[in-house]
Amino acid sequence: MEAEQKLQQLLSQIEPLDKAAMARMQQRLDSMAKPLNSLGKLEQLLVRTAGICRWEKPDFAKRCVVVMCADNGIIEEGVTQTGSQVTTIMTDSIAEGKATVAVMARQMNCDVFAVDIGVREAPASPKVLDRNIRRGTGSFLKGPAMTRGQAVQGLLTGMELIRQRREEGYHLVATGEMGIGNTTTSSALASVLLGRDPAEMTGRGAGLSKEGIARKIEVIRQGIALHRPSVQDAVGLLSCLGGLDIPGMAGLFLGGAVYRVPVIADGFISSVAALTACAVAPAAREYIIGSHISGEPAGRAVMEALGVPYFLDCNMCLGEGTGAVASLGLYDLIERIFNTMSSFDDLDIEAYQPL
Amino acid sequence: MEAEQKLQQLLSQIEPLDKAAMARMQQRLDSMAKPLNSLGKLEQLLVRTAGICRWEKPDFAKRCVVVMCADNGIIEEGVTQTGSQVTTIMTDSIAEGKATVAVMARQMNCDVFAVDIGVREAPASPKVLDRNIRRGTGSFLKGPAMTRGQAVQGLLTGMELIRQRREEGYHLVATGEMGIGNTTTSSALASVLLGRDPAEMTGRGAGLSKEGIARKIEVIRQGIALHRPSVQDAVGLLSCLGGLDIPGMAGLFLGGAVYRVPVIADGFISSVAALTACAVAPAAREYIIGSHISGEPAGRAVMEALGVPYFLDCNMCLGEGTGAVASLGLYDLIERIFNTMSSFDDLDIEAYQPL
Repeated sequence: MEAEQKLQQLLSQIEPLDKAAMARMQQRLDSMAKPLNSLGKLEQLLVRTAGICRWEKPDFAKRCVVVMCADNGIIEEGVTQTGSQVTTIMTDSIAEGKATVAVMARQMNCDVFAVDIGVREAPASPKVLDRNIRRGTGSFLKGPAMTRGQAVQGLLTGMELIRQRREEGYHLVATGEMGIGNTTTSSALASVLLGRDPAEMTGRGAGLSKEGIARKIEVIRQGIALHRPSVQDAVGLLSCLGGLDIPGMAGLFLGGAVYRVPVIADGFISSVAALTACAVAPAAREYIIGSHISGEPAGRAVMEALGVPYFLDCNMCLGEGTGAVASLGLYDLIERIFNTMSSFDDLDIEAYQPL
Repeated sequence: MEAEQKLQQLLSQIEPLDKAAMARMQQRLDSMAKPLNSLGKLEQLLVRTAGICRWEKPDFAKRCVVVMCADNGIIEEGVTQTGSQVTTIMTDSIAEGKATVAVMARQMNCDVFAVDIGVREAPASPKVLDRNIRRGTGSFLKGPAMTRGQAVQGLLTGMELIRQRREEGYHLVATGEMGIGNTTTSSALASVLLGRDPAEMTGRGAGLSKEGIARKIEVIRQGIALHRPSVQDAVGLLSCLGGLDIPGMAGLFLGGAVYRVPVIADGFISSVAALTACAVAPAAREYIIGSHISGEPAGRAVMEALGVPYFLDCNMCLGEGTGAVASLGLYDLIERIFNTMSSFDDLDIEAYQPL
C-alpha cells in the first residue's frame, strides 16, 4: 500500500532528542538563583523542548490548538446521551470562537484550528479546516469502524497538519478533539493498549447514567471480542475501534516527532491517541508533553502508561483540548523565568551544589 | 493575656461560607455550553470564592502574594546547607523584584509584599514591610523557639496584613515564605499535626545530603521529645517549634476567613501553616484554597490532610509562594470563561441534564 509506505518512510525520519541542547539548557537552569531542580517539571519542560526544538532559548509565543472533530458510528448502539448533530454544532462553535476551548485559547494567545476529519454532517463554518476522510465511522459492533487505509490517511492527515503549522512558524501545538461517542472509542482502545478490563477504563463521558455506563462497557467488551485486535498492529487496532479523531491526533504526535515540534496531549482521549502514536512509533514518546490528569476514571492510568510529564490535576473532563490549552500559562511562566532570572552571581550568593 | 483575647475575639467573627451565593454560582456554571462539572476544580474554585466573597461574578484582577520572611534558630544545629544571611539577601531580592516569585508575579500581574516578620539581619530594601517580631527564633533544642506571646503576635500580624490588603482592594492573596531552616520547622510541625514519624515528613530542603537529612530528622525527633507539644494547643505548638513565618502565614489564612478574602496556600511550608490555622480555628478551612502539590516528600500528605482543592502537580519545591503564584493563571482562565462563555441557549443545544 502506497500510503502505508509513505507513513513508514516519514516515521523512519524520527531522531532522538538532541542531548547536547538538553544538557546546555540544564546547565543554564542550574546557574539560576534557586535551589537545584526546585522548579521541578517546569525545568523538565524547558529541557525536553530544548531537545525537541534544538534551541538555546525557549520560544513558546506562537502556538495553536488543533482540534480533531469526527463522528463515531458506535453511537447507534446507545452509548451516548446526545446525537451526532452535536458534533457538527460544536465543530462550528470551536471554529467560530464560541466553545470553551476557543474562549480559553483567546486568554492564552493561542490560535485555534478546528479540523473536520470525520464529521457526519458537514460543519457550516468556513473557518473549519476540511480534511474529512469519511462522514463518520461505522459501528464497531458491525464491522471495523473504518478501513485500514482510512486509519493510515488519518495518521498522515495529522502529520501533514503539523508540517504546515511548523511552516507557518508555530513552535508549540496543543491537541484536542470533539466527537460524540469518542469516550467509547477511547475506552475501547485504552482497554486493549493497557490490557485492562473495559470496566476500569470506562466512565460517564458527557453525562451517562449508571445503566448507560454498564451498556457502554458491554458494547466495548463485545467490540474487543469481535475484532480481537492486537497491540502489535496499532493501525489495525485504530481501524477496528477508533473514531477518526484518534488517528488524526496520533498523527499530530507523530508529526511532532518527525518535524520536531512539541505537541501537547490533552486529557483522556488525546492521551489514548498519544499512546497509539507510541504503539505506531515508540520513538515518538519523548516528543510528547502531557498537560493534565483528566477527571475520566482512567485518566491517571493512561497518563501513567504514557509516561510523559504533566502539570495540572484539575479533574477536568471537557475535552476539546481545554486541559492542554490551560497548561500554556505555565509555558509562558517558565519562559519568562528563563529570560529574566537573576543568576547566583548577580545576587552574590554561592550557587547551590549538586549532590 | 490581652493579645490572645484579641485573637479569640477576631476568630469568633468567622462565619460559614455564603451557601446561597455558592448555589447561584453553581447554577450559572450549569447553564454553560459544556458537560456538567466538566471544568472540575476550576468550577469548585468559582463556587468556593463566591461563597467567600459573596459576589455574583468573579473578580481576581487585583491580587498579591505576601511573602513571610524569618530566620530559624534551629539552623545552629546543622540542619541546613546555607546560613541566615541568605534569608536577608533573598528577602531583599523578593522585595526588589529579582527573586523567582517576583519574576513570576510580574508575569501574573500580581503585586508582591515581602514581609520581615522575623529576619535575623535586617533587610536593606525599603520595599520590605517591617513587621519584625524578633530577630530570628531560638533553637528548639534549647528551649521554645519563641514565646507564646510572640506566636500570637505572629498570627495577629498576618491577620492585620489581610485586613489592610482588603482595604486596598485586593480580592485574592497568595502566601509564600523565605527563611533558611524553615523546612525543618515545618517538618517538625507536620509530624505533630499529622501524628506521623518525622522520617516521613522530612526532605532535602534546599539541597541536603543523605547524612544531612538523617541529622535533620534526628533534630526534629529531639525537639518533639523535648517539648511534647499538643495539637490541642496550636499556639503552644507554634511557639515551641515554629519559625515566625509559620504563625505569620497562619495569620494570613485566619485573616482570610475573618475578612472574607480567598487566601492561597503554596507548597509544603505554607500548607503546614494552613493546617496550623485550621488547628487554631477549624472554621477557617473552607476559606483556604490550595495551589500545588509540593515536590517535598510530605507535600502530598500535608495537602491531603488539609483537604482543600489544589490545581498543579509540578514537583516544584522552591518556596517563596512560587506555586501559589503559578496557579493564578487558572483564576484568570476561569474568570474569562465565566464572563464570556456561551450558554446552551446561544448554541441551540439542549442543556446536559444532571443525573
